[in-house]
Amino acid sequence: MLELKHTAPVTEGAVRPEAASGVWVPATTPFRANLSIDFERYIAHCQRLLADGAHGLAVLGTTSEANSLDLGEREMVLERLVKAGVSPLQLLPGTGMASMGDTVRLTRHAIALGVRGVLLLPPFYYKNISDEGLYAYVAEVIKRVGDKRLALYLYNFPQMTTIRWSPALIGLLVQDFPDTIVGLKDSSGDIDYLDTLLERYPGFAVFPSSESLLLHGMRKGAAGIISATANTNAAGCRALYDGWQGEDALDLHKKAAALRDVVAPFGWIPGVKAILAAREGTPDWARVRPPLDELSDQQKTELLAAVEAAGG
Amino acid sequence: MLELKHTAPVTEGAVRPEAASGVWVPATTPFRANLSIDFERYIAHCQRLLADGAHGLAVLGTTSEANSLDLGEREMVLERLVKAGVSPLQLLPGTGMASMGDTVRLTRHAIALGVRGVLLLPPFYYKNISDEGLYAYVAEVIKRVGDKRLALYLYNFPQMTTIRWSPALIGLLVQDFPDTIVGLKDSSGDIDYLDTLLERYPGFAVFPSSESLLLHGMRKGAAGIISATANTNAAGCRALYDGWQGEDALDLHKKAAALRDVVAPFGWIPGVKAILAAREGTPDWARVRPPLDELSDQQKTELLAAVEAAGG
Repeated sequence: MLELKHTAPVTEGAVRPEAASGVWVPATTPFRANLSIDFERYIAHCQRLLADGAHGLAVLGTTSEANSLDLGEREMVLERLVKAGVSPLQLLPGTGMASMGDTVRLTRHAIALGVRGVLLLPPFYYKNISDEGLYAYVAEVIKRVGDKRLALYLYNFPQMTTIRWSPALIGLLVQDFPDTIVGLKDSSGDIDYLDTLLERYPGFAVFPSSESLLLHGMRKGAAGIISATANTNAAGCRALYDGWQGEDALDLHKKAAALRDVVAPFGWIPGVKAILAAREGTPDWARVRPPLDELSDQQKTELLAAVEAAGG
Repeated sequence: MLELKHTAPVTEGAVRPEAASGVWVPATTPFRANLSIDFERYIAHCQRLLADGAHGLAVLGTTSEANSLDLGEREMVLERLVKAGVSPLQLLPGTGMASMGDTVRLTRHAIALGVRGVLLLPPFYYKNISDEGLYAYVAEVIKRVGDKRLALYLYNFPQMTTIRWSPALIGLLVQDFPDTIVGLKDSSGDIDYLDTLLERYPGFAVFPSSESLLLHGMRKGAAGIISATANTNAAGCRALYDGWQGEDALDLHKKAAALRDVVAPFGWIPGVKAILAAREGTPDWARVRPPLDELSDQQKTELLAAVEAAGG
């Protein structure tokens, strides 16, 4: 692991990156037989996603199995991507850990590399926490990171964390940290919640987590998407993003949504990986880290047939 | 932080500690105004618990706010306790992190210090994981720790993790790793589950998480308790443990249970801390780390009145 100065002082004139927009892919993480990260395959996958039109990579999210990677691995992923020539401005890594201290460490490390921003999970071990407690947590993280380059995107995924960033809390955070709290990834799939945020906070960079909601979202002012299945269809998602106001918008939407819908019953992470394994002819791609389960051979066959039927 | 050899080879003849039993306290962690750990107060608290009769300390559990401590702090807690003269055989730390790698790191660190065993949370970020996936996770952790001194206690707390160690999975793990999987802490409060484990796996060291279940548990073959409220009543819990077969058992049970029951409505962590703050005349004791909330002044007054009414 490279030694990075976590305590690097903010240089005078350091500028917070412009808010992200477009198609951002939560790149999946391939593993070798011994479960270590296959960096060669990973970097190639990330570069292909960008070549296929992704605006950037929301690495180290749920789809990336980031919560199965240890602290050192998470730092190494970012370092390797930057070393391989990926622009840090095309990186929006997840840095939210269970504890404040580890979250601050990863966030400072990411900022030191010059990333576009970071996605913040709530402190997900706890249940039934109050909005006041969650506000205090975010405020403390911002204070401890202590860097005006910090651009923070809240990561809303109540099905996984049991914690929801309430619209009221988001309003308070945006009011008190207007330059830092710049957006939100919404993995809840709750359209009412999405619409509430888009209506109440124009200019706040909201990313639904599905290309099925991209057209709807863009019409209401979303910033783009961060979608698991963009791992297998970055080009289709980009075409829809570019064409959402055009004549073909509905066709592009239907095509992208159909390809996404077939994956859902198999689980996003093993499903996306199985598709990549088949497409690249590398069964290793399908491997996941425990406690997740790789698809069975029969599930893989069913999934691939469904993808083909959907035009993928 | 002390430099410990995480890769220390297992010495020939190294022996796995005897299974734990008795009253083990998940010691709470006091914080200074800047939220750093107040080690002086912490060590004094731990030493008092042992002096009051606790058989050992199940440090770095939920009640300890371990999931609000970063990796380095968790290592430092153990190091400071041992340095202060607490026998490592009286330590049963939680080492379960969200990721396998961080879990292995903490577990090896704890074993190197000579602890009695470790409490393992399931990989708590994920939801709806299969027993097969959870089995693979535990097997991989054991393999990577690679130390026959490892004595592993499963930590069952589905209200917090959403993951339950099913009796069937426990049976498989005990069968395949009979020398390593030695016990379980059950924080579910589910008496049927507790009874099932005690009946099905005699000799497996099961600890309910409440002194209210200590008498019931001991009659059915439990190993003891690991209870949050033992932080404020270690002596009462010890008296019940020692006297569960005696004439006074029911009285001791009622007294301990009454003192516990008054804390429940206030939340175990802020409640226990508020009692310690009042008892020691040190308001700082009541502080918690975000996202948890300290009790309000009114809540503290109500809690302390209830404790007094319950004879505490």
